[in-house]
Amino acid sequence: MSTMTTTPIPVTVLGLGLMGQALAAAFLRAGHPTTVWNRTAAKAETLLAQGARRADSAGDTTSPLVVLCVSDYRAVREVLESTDLEERILVNLTSGTSTQARATAEYVAERGGTYLDGAILAAPDGIGTADAVILHSGPRPAFDEVEPALRALGNATYLGADHGLSALHDVAVLGLMWSILNGFLQGAALLGTAGVPATAFAPLAAQSAGTVAGWLAGYARQVDEGSYPAPDSTIDTHLAAMEHFVEESETLGVSAELPRLVKALAERAVAQGHGPSGYAALIEQFREKA
Amino acid sequence: MSTMTTTPIPVTVLGLGLMGQALAAAFLRAGHPTTVWNRTAAKAETLLAQGARRADSAGDTTSPLVVLCVSDYRAVREVLESTDLEERILVNLTSGTSTQARATAEYVAERGGTYLDGAILAAPDGIGTADAVILHSGPRPAFDEVEPALRALGNATYLGADHGLSALHDVAVLGLMWSILNGFLQGAALLGTAGVPATAFAPLAAQSAGTVAGWLAGYARQVDEGSYPAPDSTIDTHLAAMEHFVEESETLGVSAELPRLVKALAERAVAQGHGPSGYAALIEQFREKA
Repeated sequence: MSTMTTTPIPVTVLGLGLMGQALAAAFLRAGHPTTVWNRTAAKAETLLAQGARRADSAGDTTSPLVVLCVSDYRAVREVLESTDLEERILVNLTSGTSTQARATAEYVAERGGTYLDGAILAAPDGIGTADAVILHSGPRPAFDEVEPALRALGNATYLGADHGLSALHDVAVLGLMWSILNGFLQGAALLGTAGVPATAFAPLAAQSAGTVAGWLAGYARQVDEGSYPAPDSTIDTHLAAMEHFVEESETLGVSAELPRLVKALAERAVAQGHGPSGYAALIEQFREKA
Repeated sequence: MSTMTTTPIPVTVLGLGLMGQALAAAFLRAGHPTTVWNRTAAKAETLLAQGARRADSAGDTTSPLVVLCVSDYRAVREVLESTDLEERILVNLTSGTSTQARATAEYVAERGGTYLDGAILAAPDGIGTADAVILHSGPRPAFDEVEPALRALGNATYLGADHGLSALHDVAVLGLMWSILNGFLQGAALLGTAGVPATAFAPLAAQSAGTVAGWLAGYARQVDEGSYPAPDSTIDTHLAAMEHFVEESETLGVSAELPRLVKALAERAVAQGHGPSGYAALIEQFREKA
């Protein structure tokens, strides 16, 4: 990632929190002329020593590529108001919602610029390695134009023209991550009542998570086809075991909120006639506003 | 698993649902003299052709090892009432709670038998392969005595003397499984609003699940130590992204129940001073009765 193999693309990084600093450092390592700016100027010092140029204001840059990584979309709007966007490509890696991304795309277009939204699935210390997946969405030609620079940051992945796609994928992945961690902690809490340490549960949990991860492609096919045959366990069978999940939690005095939600979703699916279906039929519960 | 390498141990299998039939067939393949019984006698036909002996009633057996796999604990009690348990080892693979397992252990002891509880982490067609993890709990000497036979069923794993451990591990693993599937379906529902098929999300989801599975051992150490440093994301940082998870779901009209629970747990941790802690601090929320 850090070896220069393409024409240098001048880039400006606006926002130098931990992530912004990591982004700017990766551009510098890859040989791209890098201008940096932060509301608090002191955060630029290390980057200046690494060869960055300091912009005196967010508007004091002329690079064709502007990468933005600030705390939230209020800060995004403030920074953009003082930046000339005419004929420039703005890549916004600030965390936000798909609605905010789509609105910002309109705002940037009105100001004569081109907008790419992005989401970073990595910690700052992973930036610049192949493990750092960075999702991008917006017009493909703009992505292709700046991709040689974006590649310096990690595994630059293009999702599609809809600017909302990066934020949606980001939150979908994070939601899965929180779900796994919560499922593990619920199990650890249950086992803890019998004196089993979490570290004793972890290997079985990790192995099981890996097994379930291998099922996702198959369930996804059923979701897309809208047909949920049950080659193994039906939702009826799952529901019987979910009752134990709730009962164990209540009896042993640990939180039963997660188990109750798990069970309630399956109960609703059964009430809608999906008792003999496979687990993927639950997609209909998640699609329903509640 | 199916090659006979030990002295044959006469075994009786009580209950011949899909799972009971798979268990009996695996014992037969491994060369153990196998007696079978089911309330509905017809389910024994295939096994009889494979060399099983039919018991005329649940009590019509003398084998030192009795394996029980019926629909629920009500059926367990009914079957045991008509079975002579004196000086026999009963391995109960019926799905239930840790409380039911512990109560059954007492009942079997009163009747002069030795009780091992078990939980099967496999589908019937996996029985007899190394992939079939079967958890056992109860007195170690009894497990060691029948382990050469249990090995015929799969990867026989001993958890400890507390009879409740198999059921607890079972429900902990299932809870993690449902959590992963629900997290995936929530993400698929969100992405579906932008026309992204679940099959397009599945590879990223599977990769992410594998990554998170790799973190569990580290979080488990923090849980056991009761100390939750945040080398990467703090709960405060997670909470900001969780707000997007809820907001996206509400705005896009998909179910926000799971996102709201995810966020509520983190909010409570922050209210208890865990904003700067790492995610493992949430164990305290799961331990609390709610």
